[in-house]
Amino acid sequence: MKKSKTQEALEELGNDLVKNVLAGKPPVMNVPVRALSNVSYNKKSETLELGDKTSERNFFNVAHAKKFLQTLEVAAKSKELLTLGKHASLRDVFYMVKRTIPNTKTNIVDEQSESDNAIEDLEALSGFSREQLNINANKMGSVAGHVVIEDKGDEIDWAKMGSGGWSVPSNVEEITFKKVRAKYVIYMEKAAVWERLHEDKFWDKQNCIIMSSQGQTTRGIRRLLQRLSQEHDLPIYVLADFDPWGFYIYSVLKFGSINLAHMSGSMTLNTARFLGITADDIENYGLKKMLITFKDVDQTRLKQLQNYEWFQNNKAWQRQFKLMATMKAKAEIQALSSRGISFITEKYLPEKIKKGEFLQ
Amino acid sequence: MKKSKTQEALEELGNDLVKNVLAGKPPVMNVPVRALSNVSYNKKSETLELGDKTSERNFFNVAHAKKFLQTLEVAAKSKELLTLGKHASLRDVFYMVKRTIPNTKTNIVDEQSESDNAIEDLEALSGFSREQLNINANKMGSVAGHVVIEDKGDEIDWAKMGSGGWSVPSNVEEITFKKVRAKYVIYMEKAAVWERLHEDKFWDKQNCIIMSSQGQTTRGIRRLLQRLSQEHDLPIYVLADFDPWGFYIYSVLKFGSINLAHMSGSMTLNTARFLGITADDIENYGLKKMLITFKDVDQTRLKQLQNYEWFQNNKAWQRQFKLMATMKAKAEIQALSSRGISFITEKYLPEKIKKGEFLQ
Repeated sequence: MKKSKTQEALEELGNDLVKNVLAGKPPVMNVPVRALSNVSYNKKSETLELGDKTSERNFFNVAHAKKFLQTLEVAAKSKELLTLGKHASLRDVFYMVKRTIPNTKTNIVDEQSESDNAIEDLEALSGFSREQLNINANKMGSVAGHVVIEDKGDEIDWAKMGSGGWSVPSNVEEITFKKVRAKYVIYMEKAAVWERLHEDKFWDKQNCIIMSSQGQTTRGIRRLLQRLSQEHDLPIYVLADFDPWGFYIYSVLKFGSINLAHMSGSMTLNTARFLGITADDIENYGLKKMLITFKDVDQTRLKQLQNYEWFQNNKAWQRQFKLMATMKAKAEIQALSSRGISFITEKYLPEKIKKGEFLQ
Repeated sequence: MKKSKTQEALEELGNDLVKNVLAGKPPVMNVPVRALSNVSYNKKSETLELGDKTSERNFFNVAHAKKFLQTLEVAAKSKELLTLGKHASLRDVFYMVKRTIPNTKTNIVDEQSESDNAIEDLEALSGFSREQLNINANKMGSVAGHVVIEDKGDEIDWAKMGSGGWSVPSNVEEITFKKVRAKYVIYMEKAAVWERLHEDKFWDKQNCIIMSSQGQTTRGIRRLLQRLSQEHDLPIYVLADFDPWGFYIYSVLKFGSINLAHMSGSMTLNTARFLGITADDIENYGLKKMLITFKDVDQTRLKQLQNYEWFQNNKAWQRQFKLMATMKAKAEIQALSSRGISFITEKYLPEKIKKGEFLQ
């Protein structure tokens, strides 16, 4: 079997270390610094990016030795997975590298945070995402629309998945799109809202794709959105709550985050637009009685958003932040159900999309 | 359109109240008491069941009026949904009934817990599950296997779903099984473990169905397991962690819970067996180094389990509880990955199933 680029990159990493050793030099890795101090917002690409700072990890330095070993160990496990053609979860990798160093009482890792961290170092070092390194995060979410894909030899029609939809895997790198008939993608954080849109055949009537996770946006979802956006020129509309967390979901999807900065190129969505709920919607669609009063933690979170560099000169967003701060209240997507169970699919969404009422 | 039995039941509820009013009597509902005091373990059926106690809810009693109204209001919304042929989430229903009573400052509901509670009362009153009343809980989970179903006019082959699988909807009442070729179902709480079994085509090699949620077992998952068990005589093997929470997942699936007692008939799984991880597995499969030390909260939870009536005379379970109490430690399914990424599918599961090493 031909070696993949990922396998080659990992071998190169190993070979470089061996060369050092044979030349009588200490084995050293130069790992990009993944911390706020090395993250900046690139105005042109509109993403959070990692800077050039690296930190040396020298095997012969007692302070570095453990991290050095952890990174090398996850690299070895990743190479093993790539050779086997199998995928492991972050938790699996933790257990795969959790062992005691012979003749010592020291474990290579004691907590998953250590192996997770080593995996992110490996991403930054190799330039490959952990999905490409055959390490998966959690699986979550469903999708429906007039799309036919091929995955693991199966042809899957997202329009013929009954009430459940296709379950999005944690890793979507190897999916091939066979047919994509859609004008845009709506991504929503809530599975219940997805079920509403699906039951009303919104994707069929409006010629779009509907996708949801439950809670956090997994990397599988993020990459699937990105591939649809890049390979099929589809805008991504984010349907989230009118609250600091809903806004933050959009912010991370579009601009990235500190944690994702080393991967921002393959994880951000320049075509993302915020579709709702907005402060104006609360007025226009009679949702005032459905507002939920702020807690202190909401207030704090909102202030952080207001100060994000990428929002600072954005008038439309600053206006929303101010209106929210004045209201001292938030509103959920499902509040639209107070106007009727299908108000969201029959009136709210078609109207807003037609008028182009997006925030971006 | 012909009225469904559910619609008829809700109309009967309304008609009875109208009859009272026309006869000059106060409108009264007799709601089964859903509390520990009215829940008992039925040794014969092996489920937690609701007793006969009911509590009167009289509209003219100031202490009852609000709850009376809430129950009636969710009944009206459910009837509306059934007539429209649409489904709403619990959160939707909250917003649908959240309104101010005219000429007062009182809202019908202020918190979702109130509408949720009213929906459970309606389940107990009508004998129909909220899914049958067109009210759905959260959507979660994936499934794969040699099964063909029909759902909403689509024919769906669970064997041809690529790496994602079919996404289980919140409501599986209207699914028809067209073909079921399986000897058993493995249910696991963790999506990552499901992806392991799926990548290794475990369902194909071992002729079974694999199903997972992520975290809590949703009612959609529970009902799908139950329908496969009842309609196709399949045993359900529960693959969970060796910890009080893993054991509890099994306990609720098999015997029910206080919250589910009024629905126990349609929510419990007599054919459920606990497949792993057990204290013996930790010995037999060399997982000792992968143990995670107990916290106080684990200790407390374990004691509660030991005292559950349905476990009290169960020697096999009491032995596990004792061994766990001695170890003061727990172990996760993924700990098996320390023995190799496919150790779980190639050795652990086939061996345990062949030897019939179940707890029940």
